[in-house]
Amino acid sequence: MSTVTGLKSSADVLFLMLGAAMVFAMHAGFAFLEVGSVRKKNQVNAFVKILTDWSVSTIVYFLIGFPISYGISFLKPAEELLGKNQGYDLVHYFFLLCFAACIPAIISGGIAERAKFWPQVVAGAVFAGLSYPLFESLIWGQNAALLQGFFKSLGGAEFHDYAGSVVVHSIGGWLALPAVLILGPRMGRYIHGKSHPIPISNIPFLALGSWILAVGWFGFNVMSAGNIDKISGLVAVNSLMAMVGGVLAALLASKNDPGFIHNGALAGLIAVCAGSDIMHPLAAVVVGAIASLIFVYGFHLEQEVLRIDDVLGVWPLHGVIGSWGGIAAGIFGQKALGGMGGVSFVSQLAGSISAIIFALVSGFLVYGLLAKTVGIRLSEQDEFAGADLSIHSIGAYPEDHIR
Amino acid sequence: MSTVTGLKSSADVLFLMLGAAMVFAMHAGFAFLEVGSVRKKNQVNAFVKILTDWSVSTIVYFLIGFPISYGISFLKPAEELLGKNQGYDLVHYFFLLCFAACIPAIISGGIAERAKFWPQVVAGAVFAGLSYPLFESLIWGQNAALLQGFFKSLGGAEFHDYAGSVVVHSIGGWLALPAVLILGPRMGRYIHGKSHPIPISNIPFLALGSWILAVGWFGFNVMSAGNIDKISGLVAVNSLMAMVGGVLAALLASKNDPGFIHNGALAGLIAVCAGSDIMHPLAAVVVGAIASLIFVYGFHLEQEVLRIDDVLGVWPLHGVIGSWGGIAAGIFGQKALGGMGGVSFVSQLAGSISAIIFALVSGFLVYGLLAKTVGIRLSEQDEFAGADLSIHSIGAYPEDHIR
Amino acid sequence: MSTVTGLKSSADVLFLMLGAAMVFAMHAGFAFLEVGSVRKKNQVNAFVKILTDWSVSTIVYFLIGFPISYGISFLKPAEELLGKNQGYDLVHYFFLLCFAACIPAIISGGIAERAKFWPQVVAGAVFAGLSYPLFESLIWGQNAALLQGFFKSLGGAEFHDYAGSVVVHSIGGWLALPAVLILGPRMGRYIHGKSHPIPISNIPFLALGSWILAVGWFGFNVMSAGNIDKISGLVAVNSLMAMVGGVLAALLASKNDPGFIHNGALAGLIAVCAGSDIMHPLAAVVVGAIASLIFVYGFHLEQEVLRIDDVLGVWPLHGVIGSWGGIAAGIFGQKALGGMGGVSFVSQLAGSISAIIFALVSGFLVYGLLAKTVGIRLSEQDEFAGADLSIHSIGAYPEDHIR
Repeated sequence: MSTVTGLKSSADVLFLMLGAAMVFAMHAGFAFLEVGSVRKKNQVNAFVKILTDWSVSTIVYFLIGFPISYGISFLKPAEELLGKNQGYDLVHYFFLLCFAACIPAIISGGIAERAKFWPQVVAGAVFAGLSYPLFESLIWGQNAALLQGFFKSLGGAEFHDYAGSVVVHSIGGWLALPAVLILGPRMGRYIHGKSHPIPISNIPFLALGSWILAVGWFGFNVMSAGNIDKISGLVAVNSLMAMVGGVLAALLASKNDPGFIHNGALAGLIAVCAGSDIMHPLAAVVVGAIASLIFVYGFHLEQEVLRIDDVLGVWPLHGVIGSWGGIAAGIFGQKALGGMGGVSFVSQLAGSISAIIFALVSGFLVYGLLAKTVGIRLSEQDEFAGADLSIHSIGAYPEDHIR
Repeated sequence: MSTVTGLKSSADVLFLMLGAAMVFAMHAGFAFLEVGSVRKKNQVNAFVKILTDWSVSTIVYFLIGFPISYGISFLKPAEELLGKNQGYDLVHYFFLLCFAACIPAIISGGIAERAKFWPQVVAGAVFAGLSYPLFESLIWGQNAALLQGFFKSLGGAEFHDYAGSVVVHSIGGWLALPAVLILGPRMGRYIHGKSHPIPISNIPFLALGSWILAVGWFGFNVMSAGNIDKISGLVAVNSLMAMVGGVLAALLASKNDPGFIHNGALAGLIAVCAGSDIMHPLAAVVVGAIASLIFVYGFHLEQEVLRIDDVLGVWPLHGVIGSWGGIAAGIFGQKALGGMGGVSFVSQLAGSISAIIFALVSGFLVYGLLAKTVGIRLSEQDEFAGADLSIHSIGAYPEDHIR
Repeated sequence: MSTVTGLKSSADVLFLMLGAAMVFAMHAGFAFLEVGSVRKKNQVNAFVKILTDWSVSTIVYFLIGFPISYGISFLKPAEELLGKNQGYDLVHYFFLLCFAACIPAIISGGIAERAKFWPQVVAGAVFAGLSYPLFESLIWGQNAALLQGFFKSLGGAEFHDYAGSVVVHSIGGWLALPAVLILGPRMGRYIHGKSHPIPISNIPFLALGSWILAVGWFGFNVMSAGNIDKISGLVAVNSLMAMVGGVLAALLASKNDPGFIHNGALAGLIAVCAGSDIMHPLAAVVVGAIASLIFVYGFHLEQEVLRIDDVLGVWPLHGVIGSWGGIAAGIFGQKALGGMGGVSFVSQLAGSISAIIFALVSGFLVYGLLAKTVGIRLSEQDEFAGADLSIHSIGAYPEDHIR
């Protein structure tokens, strides 16, 4: 019997380590998605922002964030960290760090091409170390009884967010909105009230980013089980189906545009996180397709009607669609629609709205404070020269610049 | 005991989910291999074709293909889909979908740079939803007794195709041949009977595609075990050895050409699928090396002598080498050559030939019908402008076009 | 009970297969890191070198290297290779091959842009087939009693190198030093005693290489456990922490330079291999940060003061930092610093120095012999034209050259 327990314990550590490696890889996906979607003069900056935010998140979530969320501190000798379960808490931290670090990675795409470097590093640290863990603790963590009790009294069931449509993506996307609003649009994006879309640089890099994200997402969703014995093939196939629904809806709605199609895959995956364990695969197709339509039309609304210069469209993509994912779990998770049941539409709506409020308040607070003190926007000269030369003193293709 | 059974069941789901994620990633490899091998004006089209074919395959194989192959329908409530084995059938579907979706991905490389978009989407849907599952059901699936009985009566053993040299790759490659023949060569490829090779655009992307495919292939072959307790280290190392044999043979035969070397790795991997579980690693080196020579010389024969404009050479690569893989399993799987035995040369030959016939008939039927009705080829203007601008209204590097 | 044993045996094979696939992928990382760091005219050569060295290493390590290290030969029928443990020895070979093949991959980055092709293939074969296995056998393998006994008598504990800071990285980096010295600098790198840095070509490819390496590294370190029941979450998180320490130190020390930041991640990962199982995560941050400073300042010292043209800086990166990793395990592995203990500073120092001596002797011997006989450097014309055109008869972007 002790062998079985030992094997189970080892398998759990492997399970979360593989999940963590897959979701860690997604951060390369965030980087390439942004690199492909900005101008050449801001590509280096995109890479460095993502890697720096990741690194800072690692430290603050280790020291502050994870202890806030789950009440577990790592400030004890290595031997105790390893414990009797082969360091399960450590890989659990690693896996959940990959989620926390999505917050600055999501925002990065919205504020691209004109934000100062260090203020954004500070904002990312606050979000990954404080804001996100606070909300996480109330939904998934040690303080879940507080907020979940409220949701249960409202709708008869706890708020269900299996892999973070709301906790991760909507928080990230709705945090980006204040950042983008306070920053203002890039130079030349809107001139005399007219919209002048800025061409993106590199669709192969955009596609590479999308593919890396999509593959890693199967770690994001499936390993959210936390333990190998809770693994669910339904989660894997629902993720697949929502992605595919997103691709096909974007294909039709955007008239075959490669940017929308590759982001449509992500739209579907964002929306399916919350209910991936309780929906029917065909419902997941619908949820993903609707998510994709939200992105195609929401992006247009945001950029052309509301005139918000959110470079990668992270507010509609992660923010609005994340919220849609939370709500969709309350619809398509119902037994009447082929789902597993046990979920409440009202609770899902309430949970999704609470995340929006939490993110907007956090975002306006942090970016407002930074803007008023150190400033968050590059100077005109620096923005014109590009973040690469002005912040990093080098372009993305140094050999070409020499010639 | 129930713990062991539960752990085994979880491990099986994880096993196939990891395999599926690895083979899903291979489709990014197909995309980059094609993107690097076509001209810049057709790169976007390559990305969109692969992702669209994948998405359409997902739907049709879920609704029609998998039920045809294995007699399992997913049109029941989520709870029943999950069942008592944590949704094993669902991840099994996911893993095998990755195989089915290879069919349009393989063809895509042959017909690149001049095919219409939607007719090819339809063709891919027919192949992934009907043709492939029909053949799959006869070799691996619910109707295997029919065809395998015939092979056994011929050669004394069933037709052995562990991971799909024949069922997947040869079917894909031999389906591409009619497509390429009916389409005809790209504008300017052969002028007044003279061959004018069209330069490829980007060897780094080609190499990236090859690497992604090669890494994912270890999921393709190893997870073909289906259950974790049937895993075989021999399959992994034989895959490695065939790949390496393919690289080294291409290095020598092509006089150090990067395109052949990176495709040589794939040639070896295609050939080894069928017999990876029954050959000796040194035999796998030989099988891979011969496969690579088939590609180097077969590509020349196809393009320069037969004057077939198969852009990525998918007919020799997946078609001919896939057949070679089926036959090779009948040779190098023999005990006399260090193999595991239990395999018949005659059955392998018969199985490989049956796949060729099946694919040629399906291919001429589908493409012939499409060509006669909606047409499968871009207009001259569209082909000249490139599939990117004419189909997707955007080039791969929008910023560069603006300047 | 037999079920548990069977499941454990299967899980072990899967464990090492996944590790092997992850570390195999790292070789794509080596390739892209070099491709991004050389001029465009040498990109194809970088790809082909890495894939060829990998392939040759596979063969020689199978036939000669692994038998030298572990006394296991694979020259027996497939059935015996599979044995009763599902081919565990085979995947063990596969996993350790991925380490052996790092040796030529590391050297490749140092000698880039001016080395002949075939002599380097031969050197790589000697290292992966003989030199490396010899040293490996003395530290991890069948002859460990010899050298480890010596270290134990010196310092009271065996030399501890969990995942190869010393055995793999320092050997690779210190082998590269003689190669680079004997080759001499690239044309135009130092003119009349003045340093003329040669601009790199492509930071996105460099970053891609770094990301691929970083993700695969979790296979490199975690699967070094060898068996699933020895998996340690501490190893995973220490790897993460050292990487992050490396990124942040490089960010500050290099003033936000993308090349140093992405190599800083690798610096941390190289240094943490040796002691990843015995250090505290916060100690790992420090070890990684120091490693990164060694790279930033060591690279400058090497290139500008010592005037050694080591293109990717592989001597400071893998060589010096690998040695630092061995020594650091003797410091931060101590219980007094929160570590697991059982490690001796003196033994670590002795082990790290022994590797330096072994590598320098091997390197001067092999490269000296090759230089005296066949020559190891391209002709001036060939170097000027670039390795791509002179060795491979094609550039990295053929379509662009045509226009």
